[in-house]
Amino acid sequence: MQKVSKSFLKDSHYITELELCSVRLIDNFRFPWIILIPKRKKVTEIFQLNKNDQTLLIKEIVYASKVMKKTFKAFNLNIEKIGNIVSQLHIHVIARSKKDLSWPLSVWVVKKKNYSKQTLKKTIVKIKKNFSVS
Amino acid sequence: MQKVSKSFLKDSHYITELELCSVRLIDNFRFPWIILIPKRKKVTEIFQLNKNDQTLLIKEIVYASKVMKKTFKAFNLNIEKIGNIVSQLHIHVIARSKKDLSWPLSVWVVKKKNYSKQTLKKTIVKIKKNFSVS
Repeated sequence: MQKVSKSFLKDSHYITELELCSVRLIDNFRFPWIILIPKRKKVTEIFQLNKNDQTLLIKEIVYASKVMKKTFKAFNLNIEKIGNIVSQLHIHVIARSKKDLSWPLSVWVVKKKNYSKQTLKKTIVKIKKNFSVS
Repeated sequence: MQKVSKSFLKDSHYITELELCSVRLIDNFRFPWIILIPKRKKVTEIFQLNKNDQTLLIKEIVYASKVMKKTFKAFNLNIEKIGNIVSQLHIHVIARSKKDLSWPLSVWVVKKKNYSKQTLKKTIVKIKKNFSVS
């Protein structure tokens, strides 16, 4: 199993483990934002996953999308595989609202702001509840 | 079958049809950039596709990713479902290079520039070749 890259550990917080992916909350108060990290070694692109894992990935993207939509009453979901800076394959799932700081532009056009300790804790609990984990 | 939204017709050019998706080239000289548009009515989120279509979608994302990687010798692929402005479900597949205008940042931080007529034609031919269509 691939260990989670150090930069994820620094910038995100544990939510849960799915069959294929680790799920973590990105520490950015601006947007409800999780990442799915497939637990496979040396994979940087979706096409490097085997076919079974590709199917699992889309299933887990769908599941995580529904959780984020429900938890944050999202108007729209942004689902992104970028990996220009951290190459280990990871998928961003971001709950967008018409009232968020960069709407309708991408989340990448505004600077991040970390959660306060209290809001971070509350947000993690809220997401975990809808992933049916505690 | 869902018709392709007018704004896609304006900003992109026909490449090919896959089983689930129409493939079009985004008219932005800055980045080799295609979109996959599932031919389904009233779908704005991946989770609204049925399970069979979800599996087809990941297959076609993988196929299109390989074509873009090969055609443009991409260093990395950005694969994004945004849809904040045009809600009809579409997936961006962008071939990134360490020498492109916004590397390592997102493509969304720089303004687009249209292709010249000649370069547009050449680029379409090049991509079609690797999708095995003419």
